[in-house]
Amino acid sequence: MLIRNVRPLGEAACDILIEGGRIAAIGPSSAAPAGADVEKGRGLLALPGLVEGHSHLDKTLWGLGWYRNDVGPNLTDKIDNERRYRAETNHDAGAASLAMARRLLANGTTSVRTFVDVDTDAGLKHLHGVIATRGTMAPIQRMQVVAFPQSGILRMPGTDRLLDEAMTAGADVVGGLDPCGIDRDPVRHLDVVFGLAQKHGKPVDIHLHEPGEMGAFSLDLILERTAALGMRGSVVISHGFCLAMIEPAQRDALLARMAQWEVSIATTAAPSRPVPTVPMCRAAGVTLFAGNDGMRDTWGPYGTPDMLERAMIVGLRSNLRRDEELLWALETVSAAGARGCGFDGHVLEPGARADVVLVEAETVAEAVVSRSPRQLVVSGGRVIARGGSLVGGA
Amino acid sequence: MLIRNVRPLGEAACDILIEGGRIAAIGPSSAAPAGADVEKGRGLLALPGLVEGHSHLDKTLWGLGWYRNDVGPNLTDKIDNERRYRAETNHDAGAASLAMARRLLANGTTSVRTFVDVDTDAGLKHLHGVIATRGTMAPIQRMQVVAFPQSGILRMPGTDRLLDEAMTAGADVVGGLDPCGIDRDPVRHLDVVFGLAQKHGKPVDIHLHEPGEMGAFSLDLILERTAALGMRGSVVISHGFCLAMIEPAQRDALLARMAQWEVSIATTAAPSRPVPTVPMCRAAGVTLFAGNDGMRDTWGPYGTPDMLERAMIVGLRSNLRRDEELLWALETVSAAGARGCGFDGHVLEPGARADVVLVEAETVAEAVVSRSPRQLVVSGGRVIARGGSLVGGA
Repeated sequence: MLIRNVRPLGEAACDILIEGGRIAAIGPSSAAPAGADVEKGRGLLALPGLVEGHSHLDKTLWGLGWYRNDVGPNLTDKIDNERRYRAETNHDAGAASLAMARRLLANGTTSVRTFVDVDTDAGLKHLHGVIATRGTMAPIQRMQVVAFPQSGILRMPGTDRLLDEAMTAGADVVGGLDPCGIDRDPVRHLDVVFGLAQKHGKPVDIHLHEPGEMGAFSLDLILERTAALGMRGSVVISHGFCLAMIEPAQRDALLARMAQWEVSIATTAAPSRPVPTVPMCRAAGVTLFAGNDGMRDTWGPYGTPDMLERAMIVGLRSNLRRDEELLWALETVSAAGARGCGFDGHVLEPGARADVVLVEAETVAEAVVSRSPRQLVVSGGRVIARGGSLVGGA
Repeated sequence: MLIRNVRPLGEAACDILIEGGRIAAIGPSSAAPAGADVEKGRGLLALPGLVEGHSHLDKTLWGLGWYRNDVGPNLTDKIDNERRYRAETNHDAGAASLAMARRLLANGTTSVRTFVDVDTDAGLKHLHGVIATRGTMAPIQRMQVVAFPQSGILRMPGTDRLLDEAMTAGADVVGGLDPCGIDRDPVRHLDVVFGLAQKHGKPVDIHLHEPGEMGAFSLDLILERTAALGMRGSVVISHGFCLAMIEPAQRDALLARMAQWEVSIATTAAPSRPVPTVPMCRAAGVTLFAGNDGMRDTWGPYGTPDMLERAMIVGLRSNLRRDEELLWALETVSAAGARGCGFDGHVLEPGARADVVLVEAETVAEAVVSRSPRQLVVSGGRVIARGGSLVGGA
């Protein structure tokens, strides 16, 4: 396949040659190889495939009737309300996640990391649904499923066993959650999470909403275990609000240890919370990548299946204004997401997986702030979507 | 005119009767008066006309080629860069503001407050351009022009005289800017601003980016003058970052004085800055309303002519999640904007100016987070836009 006349990340117009699902060459226009499909790029901007690095596809109510949110303000209010809602409505996490995965893909998102709740009410029901979605999407979208103890591990006895079963059932990542704040016993919580990671040989992704010194303490314990177990590059901290709440010297010491052990940060760039910013993480050499978190679920009404919109929010939250800075925002939903989650590709380079997104924009900055419609989405060398809609067969 | 079968702010379906450019009645369906135009509402959600409460229409580069931003990080870098850019390119503030005013209107924005730079380089050139736009739009969109000393008053001698001429030329509001931070002489700066307001009998809107105690000091001086001159309801503080940076007791004392003198706050809900939040202002009885600030100009690439998107950002910034809270977000771009700026209407009530916006959404919350396309825009009882485009003659 040959994609003619596109501008990779706003560079000069060129052609992208794809062979065997990978980018074979990027260069000046030349004759198409015999039998190659040719796509006319019409001078459009080419972006790498986008990455949704932190989502909860099992929870979304996208496409269903409007959910009137009347939930209390505490984290446990939201957790308990959702568990009750899903039990009462017999929520179908498989159908919900599939619909959302397809919307994400139509908008150029070729890799997704999603958490899936594992708890003593629902057991592995949601997990099985999302694993089915992962299978359905596998040829055209890569999905990592995180077995996520949303209701806590110790708070709901039996959850540790369910997480173990979830990993055996095919989950890709072991999830954790606020070791102090939710389970109120950080050592035992982390023993379960890291124990399962060791047992199953899988990475870890821990939601850390805990503020200030409490969060810094949990992060310290996590880094200690990451080093002791040699899990370089296999640990993600989601949110990490505490890093934006502690003294700069303490923060920088933690970030230096994160950089050393390649512990990445997933952020939603929440406008209402203190968050690790793009410049902060770049200066420390820590990978920061982005995701929507919930998208229109019982937790809140926000979030859209468009990673360029998330990149815009990252840019707004980190006050990125210069064109070169907007490229950093794009990286949080592409190359950095791939690095943090361990997806290959998501760069426009020879040898990379051939995920390419074409948009009408003069520059990357314009694509981000305009959230330009996706004219063409190629995943693994196949045309998957045109004009924002999946093509037949996808 | 009769708009049939709409749901005002998500309430039960009803009809809206319009007579003489005002809402005459909202109630159950009845026979249309003889000769009345009838619009089928098809059960759509009805919103009041939207308000852009803080904008800089003279600066926008919307619709022009992409401006590559390579500007330094300081406020004065941005101010000086822009003044130089506009002089070099002979920027046409009239054409720019008209194009943006029309986009805002097509998206349901029937009232706009815009700042216009007045400085010793450009003189009143930008002001005359935007006043022409105000005149062109007058039958279908109300616009308030703020004579704004973007480059300072004392820092650029002669600006005080230009501001005086701007008010004589028809500006609606006297602008001010960081009395300590930019002009470095708060008393003389405020003497000019409040002196012109008194001389011309006009209200005041002061950009206050100053952080912490410095901003609180300037605000204290502003409130002192507001009270001394009896300017109740005639002063707006734009941004007011300081209110989110000082001790709660000090903040609450300032907010109480603002409530007493009906001093309102205009916010962009900047995700990267400490800002006064919706709950904070509601608790204090202070009117908080919203605007885009710059929209794609030399200051930065963000901002769109869609006030529902701004309401969403307000919601994200103040962490508004419950349906009743999303109604507060909508109010920052409708009723509260009208109250703060002194536009009448922007509520769906008998007697109010007949500005009505119809969108496809189940609830106000859905309209805000989906930024649902505007199916119909009525301004002063006239159909102005359909399906996001201005109708012929508008």
